[in-house]
Amino acid sequence: MRIAVIGGLAAGPAAAAEAARRAPDAQVVMYEAGPHISVGTCELPYALGGRLTPDADLVVVTPEEMKRSRGVDVFVHHRVTALDARTGTLTVDALEFGATREERFDRVILATGAKARRLEVDGEDAAGVFELRDLVDKEQIERWLETEPVRHVVVVGGGYVGLEAAEAMRDRGIRATILDPSGRVLNSTVACEASDLLNDAVLEAGVTVRPERVTEVVASGDGRVTAVRTDAGEIIGCQMVIASVGIEPRTELAKAAGLKLGSQGGLEVDDHMRTSSQRVWACGDVVEIPRAPDGQRVLWPLATTARRTARVAARNATSMTPADRFRPFAGSVAVLAFGIEVGSVGLSLSQAQDAGIDAVAADIRHKSRTGAFEDSKPIDVRLVVEKGSGRILGGQLVGAEGAALRANVLAPLVQSKATARELAEDIDLLYTPPLAPAVDPLKIAASRALHLT
Amino acid sequence: MRIAVIGGLAAGPAAAAEAARRAPDAQVVMYEAGPHISVGTCELPYALGGRLTPDADLVVVTPEEMKRSRGVDVFVHHRVTALDARTGTLTVDALEFGATREERFDRVILATGAKARRLEVDGEDAAGVFELRDLVDKEQIERWLETEPVRHVVVVGGGYVGLEAAEAMRDRGIRATILDPSGRVLNSTVACEASDLLNDAVLEAGVTVRPERVTEVVASGDGRVTAVRTDAGEIIGCQMVIASVGIEPRTELAKAAGLKLGSQGGLEVDDHMRTSSQRVWACGDVVEIPRAPDGQRVLWPLATTARRTARVAARNATSMTPADRFRPFAGSVAVLAFGIEVGSVGLSLSQAQDAGIDAVAADIRHKSRTGAFEDSKPIDVRLVVEKGSGRILGGQLVGAEGAALRANVLAPLVQSKATARELAEDIDLLYTPPLAPAVDPLKIAASRALHLT
Repeated sequence: MRIAVIGGLAAGPAAAAEAARRAPDAQVVMYEAGPHISVGTCELPYALGGRLTPDADLVVVTPEEMKRSRGVDVFVHHRVTALDARTGTLTVDALEFGATREERFDRVILATGAKARRLEVDGEDAAGVFELRDLVDKEQIERWLETEPVRHVVVVGGGYVGLEAAEAMRDRGIRATILDPSGRVLNSTVACEASDLLNDAVLEAGVTVRPERVTEVVASGDGRVTAVRTDAGEIIGCQMVIASVGIEPRTELAKAAGLKLGSQGGLEVDDHMRTSSQRVWACGDVVEIPRAPDGQRVLWPLATTARRTARVAARNATSMTPADRFRPFAGSVAVLAFGIEVGSVGLSLSQAQDAGIDAVAADIRHKSRTGAFEDSKPIDVRLVVEKGSGRILGGQLVGAEGAALRANVLAPLVQSKATARELAEDIDLLYTPPLAPAVDPLKIAASRALHLT
Repeated sequence: MRIAVIGGLAAGPAAAAEAARRAPDAQVVMYEAGPHISVGTCELPYALGGRLTPDADLVVVTPEEMKRSRGVDVFVHHRVTALDARTGTLTVDALEFGATREERFDRVILATGAKARRLEVDGEDAAGVFELRDLVDKEQIERWLETEPVRHVVVVGGGYVGLEAAEAMRDRGIRATILDPSGRVLNSTVACEASDLLNDAVLEAGVTVRPERVTEVVASGDGRVTAVRTDAGEIIGCQMVIASVGIEPRTELAKAAGLKLGSQGGLEVDDHMRTSSQRVWACGDVVEIPRAPDGQRVLWPLATTARRTARVAARNATSMTPADRFRPFAGSVAVLAFGIEVGSVGLSLSQAQDAGIDAVAADIRHKSRTGAFEDSKPIDVRLVVEKGSGRILGGQLVGAEGAALRANVLAPLVQSKATARELAEDIDLLYTPPLAPAVDPLKIAASRALHLT
């Protein structure tokens, strides 16, 4: 049996390794258009900010290691340009040689991932405008910083990547301004609807957050960025721009192959990660997957869920009968930036309401440990609960300590459809004065939620 | 309706408050033999070590506040010396007045708690030998430290209290030696069977841990402690002893009233926290309660479970029909001492084996965050799993960061009888490089467990 894995950044290597483990007699081949496989994408901003050890390698596994330890044949600089889903035939461009060949496979796993959204404004191809999606981006940014006199960076978009990029700039002593239509960070994503702690810390660190959209990137005569123009009519001078306005699934190949797309523009798969073709499975940022609170299929481009979808895709692609099923995801994300932790699981209030769920939010502020400690810090907890049933739909925690890991306990609760009453009254959370107060902030929020539902 | 609550330290006030909330027309009376109610027992070592704010009040609620906010009549310095379970008649000694009276109640809630075990050696009543169970102990220790030239303290017992007491002494600049037959800290309790991180940190902080038992407390002519003698024939000079060799339920009153005891010497209650008497409920450290992994009824003297039993007892005591049931507990405990966090949920391997369960332990050491961070720290995880079923019986995490709160997620998993496979493959744990690695240490341990079961 021959199995092809298309895409080698995160889900691809996980799927290839699992396929090789499950089907030791199969030939597993992985194609990646870029120069690297298995890149620690989430580590990029920290590497950029100089927070990692000097010898830190962001390539988790090399092609040679994949071959040696898993028996997977890896081809980097190889782009798959066409897929015949009926026959399993791939058209592969060997980019370094300018050669094209066709290869036939019994089964195909698509892990084409996602790409950064473009700003869609004039001048965005100016020199000094970057994304921060992969190792090549990071290296280009570093080269720019080494050679250009960068004093001010405009970060477009206040999501996770924008926030971490701004912190990396500050870690390098460079002034940063974040532009986000909301005027806040992590606002359009799930975490910080109900808390000002992170936003305040960003401002305190000297990073400006402006409620504006970029309408044009202004460049000098030699094509170097000198400013951005915003929808407020402002011109903000800068020597570098990091664009982080979200990502979108890379579906070109799948679309051309006639595979069915989902409602959010990602690839449609069943619970076995099989596409609309009997021969093709898919995983990672390109697929739409069901979320636990309401079963809705959405794009959820995270490394952790990517690995889960990869495992399921590989197990089913190597089995004659449907094997492993994907269990709806909790949607657990976290960030630590500017000294503030954010942990978020499940739906935000607005996501729940957008999904038509009759949801309420219990908001509390408490201390992350026994208040009598000199240095105990505030923690904001929002618990999102379905009215009537009291089911926990999600929760967001924000604070200087104990916010992120504390959120983890919500994952099994959301995934098993537990109620606020169970969290308030039955689930035994730890108590030790220097780390957790007698009644955990999560339980306090759950008790509050009981009065709202 | 008249409801009596006997005992006012932790479970008592919680039960009284809940009873008053549930039965606003009832008269709720609480008796406490000591001078305080609602004491933050777990905070005592930190107060002793000077880690709390100067104005920190370890009395969470005063009798006056209980009266004002809940309508509960509180009598401190009142000891209940007899209980007629058939009629609901209590014999109450007003200790400050030397008077005795009888009071009749419709329903009685016993929250008599636990008391420190005695050393049972000659000389243990010498001046300078203390327990650390309540506010009075703490104040006596402080007075002793202020008036005596204490250079060396022997802490008998390396459990939670002993460990925290030793750290408090070190925080005050006083040398401490811990005596524990195991030669380790937290060894006879659940947490540290499989990790040396805490033990090493204790030794590094200059605290000696000796595998010895005290056989005699040696005192000077005027009755002040000068040394302890051990079963190794050693004499260890010291000017103070803190005895922390465990606690035992205070069952004298219940026993005299003819109430049934459980197999561990605690009070037997059903899932509604009702004792063998129709008129008497019980809660807190005095009762035996069912643990989640195997349903066995055990003593589990923790503030968090005490509050849960108090709530259940009060709801049933104020209801004509059985109301709330106690859900078997996960057994979540945590400690932070000498810079090392311990988080433990459920059973240790030896506890599981003692209970006759065919259990295995998966032990792993990992980093608490992405390894490429300069200052990432090791974390030891032991996951205890039932062979065959793969059910998670418990887990213990030890490390300098992210160990305690990370353990919380095991609580709902243990309480819902989840398997190692679910934890390894389906439960979405957070990933963010500065706080949690791409594959959480808990998942790594769960994956390891899959290969063992």
